[in-house]
Amino acid sequence: MTKNSTNKKRRVHFDPDNVDIVVEEGASLLGTAIAAGVHIYADCGGAGVCGTCKVLIKEGEVESTRTEKLSDEEYERGFRQACQSRVITDLEVFVPVESRLEVGALARERSADWEISKKVAATSQKLETLATEWTFNPPISKLFLELTPPTLANNVSDLTRLLRGLKERYNLNNLSVDFNVVKKMARVLREGNWKVTVTTLVTEPKTGSNGERSSILTNIEPRDTRRRFYSLAFDIGTTAVRAQLIDLNRGKVQADGIQYNRQISYGGDVITRINYCKQPDGLTTLQQAVVGTMNELINDLLRQFRIKRENIYHIVVAGNTTMMQFLLGLEPEFLRLHPYVPTINIPPLVKANSLGLEVGEHVYLYALPSVASYVGADIVSGIIGTGVYQRRKLTLYVDIGTNGEIVVGNSDWMVSASCSAGPAFEGGGVKHGMIATQGAIEGFEVNPSNLEPTIEVIGNTKPKGICGSGLVNITAKLLEAGGIGQDGKFKTDLPTKRIREGVDGYEYVLCWAPETQINEDIVITEVDLDNLIRAKGAMYAGYKTLIKSVGLASADLEQVIIAGALGSHLDIENAIFIGLFPDIPRDRYIFIGNGSLLGARLTSFSTDMLDAGAKVAGMMTNFELSERTDFNNNYIAALFLPHTNIDDFPSVKEKLAKPQKN
Amino acid sequence: MTKNSTNKKRRVHFDPDNVDIVVEEGASLLGTAIAAGVHIYADCGGAGVCGTCKVLIKEGEVESTRTEKLSDEEYERGFRQACQSRVITDLEVFVPVESRLEVGALARERSADWEISKKVAATSQKLETLATEWTFNPPISKLFLELTPPTLANNVSDLTRLLRGLKERYNLNNLSVDFNVVKKMARVLREGNWKVTVTTLVTEPKTGSNGERSSILTNIEPRDTRRRFYSLAFDIGTTAVRAQLIDLNRGKVQADGIQYNRQISYGGDVITRINYCKQPDGLTTLQQAVVGTMNELINDLLRQFRIKRENIYHIVVAGNTTMMQFLLGLEPEFLRLHPYVPTINIPPLVKANSLGLEVGEHVYLYALPSVASYVGADIVSGIIGTGVYQRRKLTLYVDIGTNGEIVVGNSDWMVSASCSAGPAFEGGGVKHGMIATQGAIEGFEVNPSNLEPTIEVIGNTKPKGICGSGLVNITAKLLEAGGIGQDGKFKTDLPTKRIREGVDGYEYVLCWAPETQINEDIVITEVDLDNLIRAKGAMYAGYKTLIKSVGLASADLEQVIIAGALGSHLDIENAIFIGLFPDIPRDRYIFIGNGSLLGARLTSFSTDMLDAGAKVAGMMTNFELSERTDFNNNYIAALFLPHTNIDDFPSVKEKLAKPQKN
Repeated sequence: MTKNSTNKKRRVHFDPDNVDIVVEEGASLLGTAIAAGVHIYADCGGAGVCGTCKVLIKEGEVESTRTEKLSDEEYERGFRQACQSRVITDLEVFVPVESRLEVGALARERSADWEISKKVAATSQKLETLATEWTFNPPISKLFLELTPPTLANNVSDLTRLLRGLKERYNLNNLSVDFNVVKKMARVLREGNWKVTVTTLVTEPKTGSNGERSSILTNIEPRDTRRRFYSLAFDIGTTAVRAQLIDLNRGKVQADGIQYNRQISYGGDVITRINYCKQPDGLTTLQQAVVGTMNELINDLLRQFRIKRENIYHIVVAGNTTMMQFLLGLEPEFLRLHPYVPTINIPPLVKANSLGLEVGEHVYLYALPSVASYVGADIVSGIIGTGVYQRRKLTLYVDIGTNGEIVVGNSDWMVSASCSAGPAFEGGGVKHGMIATQGAIEGFEVNPSNLEPTIEVIGNTKPKGICGSGLVNITAKLLEAGGIGQDGKFKTDLPTKRIREGVDGYEYVLCWAPETQINEDIVITEVDLDNLIRAKGAMYAGYKTLIKSVGLASADLEQVIIAGALGSHLDIENAIFIGLFPDIPRDRYIFIGNGSLLGARLTSFSTDMLDAGAKVAGMMTNFELSERTDFNNNYIAALFLPHTNIDDFPSVKEKLAKPQKN
Repeated sequence: MTKNSTNKKRRVHFDPDNVDIVVEEGASLLGTAIAAGVHIYADCGGAGVCGTCKVLIKEGEVESTRTEKLSDEEYERGFRQACQSRVITDLEVFVPVESRLEVGALARERSADWEISKKVAATSQKLETLATEWTFNPPISKLFLELTPPTLANNVSDLTRLLRGLKERYNLNNLSVDFNVVKKMARVLREGNWKVTVTTLVTEPKTGSNGERSSILTNIEPRDTRRRFYSLAFDIGTTAVRAQLIDLNRGKVQADGIQYNRQISYGGDVITRINYCKQPDGLTTLQQAVVGTMNELINDLLRQFRIKRENIYHIVVAGNTTMMQFLLGLEPEFLRLHPYVPTINIPPLVKANSLGLEVGEHVYLYALPSVASYVGADIVSGIIGTGVYQRRKLTLYVDIGTNGEIVVGNSDWMVSASCSAGPAFEGGGVKHGMIATQGAIEGFEVNPSNLEPTIEVIGNTKPKGICGSGLVNITAKLLEAGGIGQDGKFKTDLPTKRIREGVDGYEYVLCWAPETQINEDIVITEVDLDNLIRAKGAMYAGYKTLIKSVGLASADLEQVIIAGALGSHLDIENAIFIGLFPDIPRDRYIFIGNGSLLGARLTSFSTDMLDAGAKVAGMMTNFELSERTDFNNNYIAALFLPHTNIDDFPSVKEKLAKPQKN
């Protein structure tokens, strides 16, 4: 058998998506699925070690390397790992539910902001009003201009005439001109009979008093086109990409979109993807993957709201540092190597179409600045979006994910740090873990008398796994009910069949096989608990270390802002109960959902926010926790439920001290 | 017969070039020649009205439209107009001497600057020292930098580290960064072990006191690469493109190159080419033609001097406004339409490779500024190159061509104008006119007793036509010898066979058919004389009007600078004798040859010249002569040899008053 590609064409059909694609014989099956727009989760990025990309070959044959991730039974039934398989015949492939990324389920995250708005509203604030002191003055402006036509006595160049007109009518100085404007100017001026609409874009944030603001003339159109004026705000997440279409005339979000980041097929986490870049054209592939995702969102939004492509005038993007470097095509390797150096923290304005984005050639993309390799533009964006930098109130800002980012500070100072929590909060490294989409167990109650559970499943379907917030809820409730001890071990002497010994040690059965989508018992194991404890321990140690490094304690925090998809579905009591968050008055907590998108949107709304982003990125001092002794000590102390020092969690102490109801 | 193209392929062989090309049946024969790199002169740009692109079909057949430009005899012999012919069979084509542009002959222009240097030296000045007050400080710089490697305690972004290093070591501020530098920076810094060479380019001229100079970081290379550092200076002429390869370490011109501007096959003059742009993709075709010419020059220079492409760091270009707009891809249409408005007078810096130039992606192209549609960067370049703007001395600067450009002024003020002289100075509109290449009659003496001539031919070959400077010499000498009158008419009662009646009225035979390359009598006709008189009349009226418009007279001129290819071969006495130049002391004249290239070269040498270009373009007031009554009056008065008012030309008056020797 040869692995070389030939020129023979093979047709591959994917179900349940019901799509066909023709590829060359020898093509990778995972690559074929990506090309066909079939979303397959490939946590390890195609290395063959995670087993998340299993597919069923219903007809035809693949050339495949078998790994231990496939059981004999699965192999016999025709399951293969897509990343380990090459197309050698025409194929019919079925993507099973556990390998599939269902786009529809993402709608949940889209709606999350609204739920959160309600949460915030309980403290009588709306999401957009967390940050104050900004006015609606987008970095991009449309200006209508009537020029005096040239005569022999006044035949200065078209550009001079235009710039003089802008100076006279709008007092615009420090204006540079995009070369594409120069190219079409002569024709547009005459087509509009010297009445034109020009677009100007603030080129950089104003930091301190660095003189007059400079702008670039990005577009010129004949006649008055001011009533069509849209921008896009993006959050590029490691898992999902979110977009908002913004009507700049009305100052409001017209529409929302969300898609899995197509990079997910090259690795579930940033490290796997960074490693993928060592392959030939790896970086290009990953750049094209995220750009493809963004284009899909753009095209959907345009189609859905019947907006012409040329009426998008500006794009603002936030995301973590790795995502930003991928988007801009900057090699990410040194982000993950000691001493963790990003190429750039303040990206220059770039032409959106130079990255492959399907928008007019006049559109510039502004990427928010980042602070360090692991404290990215998503955090800066969240900080400005929530106005942390505007208030004296001492704030802890936490974004929870595989990587947890932490900021402590106020309007005078800010320190940041990141800690590697591991993938448990996103369902990774957990036996039945999954991302928070349809079929994930999230809600959990348990009867303390018999440890029988009541579960809530996202999408109200049969369960197929457990998401990160589910894991927190399950752990807290089992701890409270006495099913597990503070050491994270199951109590094995209880009168219940649900706690049993499995292949990975003791486990608790959440759902028996017949009630699941996957026809096996869904369990939570001691290994899962251990992973969760390490994850929450890392987070807690992170803010503890950071807060202490500036001479403060948790009790000093006047406000805690929780960002991130996990945060938006987390039960605060449960989270504190397991020791993920400090045990301080609950009314100091604010859940904002996607902080990254919030700041990107506000930056699209307001040049004040553009300035704020630069200010915040500039004022933040980053601490590298990973090699600090006190962080390690704090981490070890936190590897307990809720903590080795229970006095750090008085409310939990009180609950645990209550006699068990059974 | 159908004119539509088919998919059949046809082979076309061109002699004497001895090149083959395969094209689709139906292709234009002129286009085929261009594609094959065969230079055919097509004065009218393929409209079929000039007859300069005649070729001989030796084998095969073309589908051709016959115009009056082909005689019956020519048609019978197999001559066709290339622009009017389509390829329908395989072909063997011979390009006759009169249709051919011989590249070798251009060497004459290349060497002209040296001859001119000698002319200038007679007034004890060297070409480069006409302009003073500039130091050798190129707009592009190479800086070597050793950086401290990052540590965990200091892991700022690569870009921040680099910029801090540049600030500390070279006190560089106001530095923007090219995105390609951002892209490769991470790898280059580490490859060079934190020792790198960066290239910075001044982004814009300093006019007045507009604050600190801003630069752009255009390149970064590992280790110390300072010893390889070259730039290119170009003059884009309507007929020829000249290039100089400059060694920026030694501050000298390493090599010269010259090529016909390939646009010549789309029209001999700018108006024809501007009209050509109305065709689909016309502008793109013309842009690619000039870029192709520049690439040919670049490739020749690099090969010849074994310089690597990436060691070219900067390009400076000058040329007339139309040539600049073609190069930049800006529609030229409005340059030629009333009220003659250029798109842009101060072009932005552009990436050279974005125009199609085959240089590294780090190379920016700086195009010198222009003043008006018909007073271009070539004139600004000449003015700065000759230091006119630096001296109190009242100067007349004249660039003679199809379009004559005129500047009058000194360090305090400058006025400019252009006048359409018509193509006579470049051999156009003249029965046997040709550009000044091999075979052109240039030198001319005549025996006053029998009007028998002595001719000098460029390249010392048999003649095939008359070039512009030849036309001036012939006219002056025949006038002096009494063969023609001051009205530009032949004396028909003289005892010579050389003055005779031809198809275009009276004519003088310069060379009998057997002594020529073209096997017909080479003549100068009264129509030719009329065209020459109109041409020199327009020039003379131009400077007369311009000088008078500022309240001065020719006698006030303290210096006259003659630029342009014609100027470099002109006999000053003859030129004054026919009334082309004012009759003032000869030692006030300086001939500089290609002033455009001179200024481009100096701008490559010195940021002072970059500033000077902007200053000069800004201070020049342009007059539109074409619709001024006094210009028309001056023009009509100048339609005489040398002038209707002979007192304007005292030295000529004296000579003409001498009794004829016969």
